[in-house]
Amino acid sequence: MSTTSDDPLNLTLAEAARAIRTREVSPVELVRGCLARIEAHDDGLRAWITVCDEEALDAARSAEREVRSGARSKPLLGVPIALKDNIATRGLRTTAGSKILSDWIPDEDATVVARLREAGAIILGKLNLHEFAWGGTSDNPHYGTVRNPWNPDRFPGGSSGGSGVAVAARMCFGALGTDTGGSIRLPSAINGITGIRPTYGRVSNHGIVPLAWSMDTAGPMARTSEDCAVLFDVIAGHDPRDPTTANRAAPPCVPTLRGSLRGLRIGVIPGYFFHHLQPDVESAVRRALSAFEELGAVIVDVPIENIHGNISAQLTIESAEPSTYHQRWLRERPQDYGADVRTLLEVGELMLATHYLQAQRYRTLLREEFLQAFRNVDAFVCPTLPFTATPVGATTVRIEGDVEESMLSAIMQFTGVASLTGLPAMSVPCGFDSEGLPVGMQLIGRPFEESLLFRMAAEYQGVTDFHRRAPDLATRGASKAPPGRPD
Amino acid sequence: MSTTSDDPLNLTLAEAARAIRTREVSPVELVRGCLARIEAHDDGLRAWITVCDEEALDAARSAEREVRSGARSKPLLGVPIALKDNIATRGLRTTAGSKILSDWIPDEDATVVARLREAGAIILGKLNLHEFAWGGTSDNPHYGTVRNPWNPDRFPGGSSGGSGVAVAARMCFGALGTDTGGSIRLPSAINGITGIRPTYGRVSNHGIVPLAWSMDTAGPMARTSEDCAVLFDVIAGHDPRDPTTANRAAPPCVPTLRGSLRGLRIGVIPGYFFHHLQPDVESAVRRALSAFEELGAVIVDVPIENIHGNISAQLTIESAEPSTYHQRWLRERPQDYGADVRTLLEVGELMLATHYLQAQRYRTLLREEFLQAFRNVDAFVCPTLPFTATPVGATTVRIEGDVEESMLSAIMQFTGVASLTGLPAMSVPCGFDSEGLPVGMQLIGRPFEESLLFRMAAEYQGVTDFHRRAPDLATRGASKAPPGRPD
Repeated sequence: MSTTSDDPLNLTLAEAARAIRTREVSPVELVRGCLARIEAHDDGLRAWITVCDEEALDAARSAEREVRSGARSKPLLGVPIALKDNIATRGLRTTAGSKILSDWIPDEDATVVARLREAGAIILGKLNLHEFAWGGTSDNPHYGTVRNPWNPDRFPGGSSGGSGVAVAARMCFGALGTDTGGSIRLPSAINGITGIRPTYGRVSNHGIVPLAWSMDTAGPMARTSEDCAVLFDVIAGHDPRDPTTANRAAPPCVPTLRGSLRGLRIGVIPGYFFHHLQPDVESAVRRALSAFEELGAVIVDVPIENIHGNISAQLTIESAEPSTYHQRWLRERPQDYGADVRTLLEVGELMLATHYLQAQRYRTLLREEFLQAFRNVDAFVCPTLPFTATPVGATTVRIEGDVEESMLSAIMQFTGVASLTGLPAMSVPCGFDSEGLPVGMQLIGRPFEESLLFRMAAEYQGVTDFHRRAPDLATRGASKAPPGRPD
Repeated sequence: MSTTSDDPLNLTLAEAARAIRTREVSPVELVRGCLARIEAHDDGLRAWITVCDEEALDAARSAEREVRSGARSKPLLGVPIALKDNIATRGLRTTAGSKILSDWIPDEDATVVARLREAGAIILGKLNLHEFAWGGTSDNPHYGTVRNPWNPDRFPGGSSGGSGVAVAARMCFGALGTDTGGSIRLPSAINGITGIRPTYGRVSNHGIVPLAWSMDTAGPMARTSEDCAVLFDVIAGHDPRDPTTANRAAPPCVPTLRGSLRGLRIGVIPGYFFHHLQPDVESAVRRALSAFEELGAVIVDVPIENIHGNISAQLTIESAEPSTYHQRWLRERPQDYGADVRTLLEVGELMLATHYLQAQRYRTLLREEFLQAFRNVDAFVCPTLPFTATPVGATTVRIEGDVEESMLSAIMQFTGVASLTGLPAMSVPCGFDSEGLPVGMQLIGRPFEESLLFRMAAEYQGVTDFHRRAPDLATRGASKAPPGRPD
């Protein structure tokens, strides 16, 4: 089953929310449509770990009654949303993509889930991910290998791979992911959707299974900037149960979504983001820069001297913190981890405290340098990652020439910068490669200035249509289990 | 030379400041008096690394002119103060008690020094300390072994040993120390003076050589609570150059120094602070608790379940962070460290990141438990350390019975709690042991509620005179170099 032009599954999240309020579409119809697509295509894509058919249909009927009774104020009333499965849901199994938590049924919702429910969202189910979010391929040994809807022989990125695929394949209208080293932005770019890692401290982590707590950040993944802004406004803000959230007001971003970019100063970091790239990724991002110029922005070269330490700092912190969290399970149940994640956690156990602390000191330097740079520019633009979707199962990647690089460091090399500095960063679809696979660009903004990123992306999406295109699941054969490793 | 009852060196800091303003004493007279005592006694005590005779006399003359011209608003005008030598002073050598920094002449003052100067204080010189503040004995291989003025065969505690000795021996009216694991409170207790470790984030660390930056806190050491409050009000407050300082107002503590303690709830942690103590330390602190009861306070037993992990967490963090800061010097100039500090730094290099991070996680737990406990009590009282001054050179201590314990962990066992939790903690003289050596009690308060600690100590000092007694340097022979290791 594919979607047609008048299929309500083609609506964006924001359009769906409006159409529900005006009673042009029914939440029950939307839930039924999503469930049918999951049923038809998820055997091949493996984006879902848990689908809540009955509960979601009940919630849709109840939302329908609310609409009929005139309730109009809830921004997500009746809209089917899904969650990365490391986000706790009350009474609903939350596995974090692991065997270790395969039976965990939380007693309470994560703060972000509680806020989605209060906003009227329908929780359609829980999405597959790289085990415990510690990896970038979403090749999950316990719940199946997630596959790219644009070509099921290719990987979907990760760790929020299920979230990227479910949104791209129109199985839900939006999803939450979590981003430590790039886990929202990478699958957003690779599956051709929009996703934002908010400023560290903007969104509560309460009830989310940690990976590396000094970087973990939850955020929205959806089709458009507007969709992400609607979700962001619902989930953002101080949470007394997460002391790392900033105790400052989070003014809504939806009202300031559109507006001229005239005079906006966009920074490009010379010699870093553009020197080691798949050529069609480079050309797509350069075209996007030209589009911003046409929208009135000015492009400025801004060197960031300290940028080259970012990958090792990122890997150091992302080794030490998860290994601390997993220490007991790693002793008691080592066989219950997938081999790749177990190895990473064991490596992290050997990391010295001085290495970890040098990496944390480096973060301070890098952040300081970015804050200085933001006196001269309003945002940075760069590719989200240097390549498009690689084959399922690949642990190395060839970006240019014949050199094989480790997937883990290659995939995070452009996203780690915002992870380390805590800056907000968004991935926005900006083209397709020669094989028709999506390319994403990354916008990086000042702390707590997500609103500007939403506006930049919304204005860009006003003059481009990359975000509107959908993979054709029927013709790509994704409904049959494709070749590759057995699940 | 000893002091007599009408010697202005017997004035407290607050009294001296008032007497200067009313022109009863002259700053020049005070500086001369201090310099004479340093000259007479410091060959034996080794409290000073640098004495600024000429500069201090010049500053005193200039302060005298200011007073004569009617200037009255500077709270420390003309008062001779000294600084632990890990606090940067513009144009004045700052060694941190090390050979490595023996030639360092800073370009700018630490923020706390700048604030002291603005308040009119006269910087009399720089005080000896345990090398790089990493140890509790102030047995310094480069600048001499600091000795206790109450008995020069005994140690002065540390790491701010020179600060404790200079104040106790009436060589200055107040000093700044720094406290990571107890380095203000320990020498305050051991030398019979009053000293406060403020809330972490209350006083700027800008310009202070770091030891373990997640715990380092600078603070005042002086004879009375009032003296410390005067100094605290001058140095406390947000500093844009130290992002760890809290961006909140610091209301002055001097105006609320005195006030009834009726109904105040004082917590005592059962089974921890009072189960392993030198008997005359225990009886002195128990008498202090009775004195608080007579002042109207209520003593409440408050168990803190997680308290027993505090020594290992403290040592773990205090190993990893200094070793990170010292990494390069440790490679390039290992022979320039004293053997004890070099060993500690080398041990810290072997610490695993997971151990460090578990210790940091433990801190969060412990702090949370204290914050809960503060719903039931206003402050905790306990000994500052479990024993009185041990012999110079001792690396172990016998607290009770025949068990020899490592000095480092034994000395920090009661002070580490506030270091880990970031709570403000003060040491107040509360008696003498059978050999006439001072005993200190520790008051621990809520975050940013230093004012209550100052009031408790001031009311207690209103009914006791332990803080008024001074060591008699002449009869103890401290002016001759006493037996012990050669300096």
